[in-house]
Amino acid sequence: MTLSRRQALGAIAAAGAAAPALATPAIAQSRVEWRMITSWPKNLPGPGVTAERLAERVAQMSGGRFTIKVYAAGEIVPPLQVFDGVASGAAQMGHTASLFWAGKMPAAPLFTAGPFGLTPLEHITWIDHGGGQALWDELYAPAGIKPFMAGNTGFQMGGWFKREINSVADIAGLKMRIPGLGGLVMQKLGAVPVTIAPGEILMALQSGVLDATEFLGPFSDIAMGFQRAAKFYYHPGWHEPNGTGEALVSIEAWNSLPAELQAVLKHACAAENIFALGESEWMNAETLTRLKREDGVQLRAFPDDFMQAAREAATEVMAELGETSDLTRRIVESYMDAAQHQAEWSAVSVRSFLAVRE
Amino acid sequence: MTLSRRQALGAIAAAGAAAPALATPAIAQSRVEWRMITSWPKNLPGPGVTAERLAERVAQMSGGRFTIKVYAAGEIVPPLQVFDGVASGAAQMGHTASLFWAGKMPAAPLFTAGPFGLTPLEHITWIDHGGGQALWDELYAPAGIKPFMAGNTGFQMGGWFKREINSVADIAGLKMRIPGLGGLVMQKLGAVPVTIAPGEILMALQSGVLDATEFLGPFSDIAMGFQRAAKFYYHPGWHEPNGTGEALVSIEAWNSLPAELQAVLKHACAAENIFALGESEWMNAETLTRLKREDGVQLRAFPDDFMQAAREAATEVMAELGETSDLTRRIVESYMDAAQHQAEWSAVSVRSFLAVRE
Repeated sequence: MTLSRRQALGAIAAAGAAAPALATPAIAQSRVEWRMITSWPKNLPGPGVTAERLAERVAQMSGGRFTIKVYAAGEIVPPLQVFDGVASGAAQMGHTASLFWAGKMPAAPLFTAGPFGLTPLEHITWIDHGGGQALWDELYAPAGIKPFMAGNTGFQMGGWFKREINSVADIAGLKMRIPGLGGLVMQKLGAVPVTIAPGEILMALQSGVLDATEFLGPFSDIAMGFQRAAKFYYHPGWHEPNGTGEALVSIEAWNSLPAELQAVLKHACAAENIFALGESEWMNAETLTRLKREDGVQLRAFPDDFMQAAREAATEVMAELGETSDLTRRIVESYMDAAQHQAEWSAVSVRSFLAVRE
Repeated sequence: MTLSRRQALGAIAAAGAAAPALATPAIAQSRVEWRMITSWPKNLPGPGVTAERLAERVAQMSGGRFTIKVYAAGEIVPPLQVFDGVASGAAQMGHTASLFWAGKMPAAPLFTAGPFGLTPLEHITWIDHGGGQALWDELYAPAGIKPFMAGNTGFQMGGWFKREINSVADIAGLKMRIPGLGGLVMQKLGAVPVTIAPGEILMALQSGVLDATEFLGPFSDIAMGFQRAAKFYYHPGWHEPNGTGEALVSIEAWNSLPAELQAVLKHACAAENIFALGESEWMNAETLTRLKREDGVQLRAFPDDFMQAAREAATEVMAELGETSDLTRRIVESYMDAAQHQAEWSAVSVRSFLAVRE
């Protein structure tokens, strides 16, 4: 089921016209009803729950004047057509992740994570204070879409491997499920990156189609059952040290909102963004402890020579990415500058502190 | 100028009575006007700006129906009487930091930071997902106050020292401005912790009354001018690896708010909390880079034997703190459990990642 842009936005335009341009104590009496399409199964732990909470937050703050109905992947559009769905007006809003749009915008994945890039707190800092939001707005504006950070699955692990990786030589020929920029890095090191739907990864590991897979952190990974097929669980998640989820809002729908409901929606995203990140961190910590005690999983750090080779390959991948367009170049430069900017401070703050705490 | 609790809350009680119990699309037509007392000079970079932004966020989301007038330290109550001011009804709300209330509640400082304790993201995670909020609520409830995280000055540095610290032996007799739990740790190592108002620290360093001082991170420290009197700038800030600011809300005033304005206030605090943390991180990074290039400051890591002795002393300080009351014991245990819970995950996520990125 799809509606035209005009049909879908009709009700909102009417509501917007009725609302005062700058609501002082005067109140917009009209209701606003939106739909949010998502890339997630209904109530998927992490992102699916975040989408539902976003809608609840908006309803609570607006006293029920602004309601958003959440649609699971496939109910209105397939999971990987959420960007197009919001662009075409099938919904006023979407909840998804920027890494899915690499095909149409090569720099988009950096708004989720980049190899050897920004940690969750550094990424939030880049978007809010380091020029990231303006570039993200510019990237999506041609599609009539305004993005907001709205959820975060946190640090990832490096992935599940059926055999130990003792040096970079063990990467050659490795069939690994690793999409995006991380996949390009692995390819430079001789691996064979495979793209495969999440629901099919476990069987591919068991049958030998895959030798390894990355996914998310312990909380989500254990739910996928990977520990049943691969015993070596590597860290760190160098390829995706962050997991920002995005709310996509139709600019036309946004402009029709009274100023106070724009503020409500913006605050719902900002509050959910950090709440979800904390939830991921807490659940990952809990699952890791359980996993170390019970599951016979072998936790391993990647060998130094592999990390060095991957870091060099990542530098090449980022440089090549920067050559695809002027905007892409500016995004890559801003992202890397933010990482450099914050790395010196991290060395004397979080990194220095964690070294003495443990 | 002070008002009685009854006078100060009168207007709100009336507004609350007029508002519908559960606002559906029906709208509370009454205005709510609050005052926020703070521990900060007007627009102090960091916390003072956060207090102003909290009020703006609430006004924006409520379309001007809910306004909060911000008062600088001393305008209604002195900076260190903000807790009492909210408790007595001089204002419906305050913006301050929990470490100031150690005298009346020994566990209160842990809601700002603890020695060798939680990092900023771990602290937020503890409050939101690890039981921290419920304990904080319980601690302040007897005073009729409800606390919210609302701002964060981030990681601290270890402090400014006039002489190099080459081993734990160099701590003996050191006159250092370091309040709170960190001061108790330093005392166990033979230092003389001095309590002194921020505005007098620089002169005390210059005159020899102090040999060393801690304060915040590079951004705030440089503004204080400490680099003019002490050249050795140590990391990490083991004594306060976090800097949560708190919004204090009178429970009586809170209960008189319509549900939607409670949600608005809660979201203003949550969004400002992470926005301010990012701002601190960004400004600290920027200032550190400048400081390394221009100011002739010597950045140093604390020596290993001092860090080990401090960690052991901190364990004693926390154990002694836990003996002061049942509630204090439960707070200390919850805080330390949260640190332990998250440390194993940090080892394979942020710590492991930063080691390979740099």
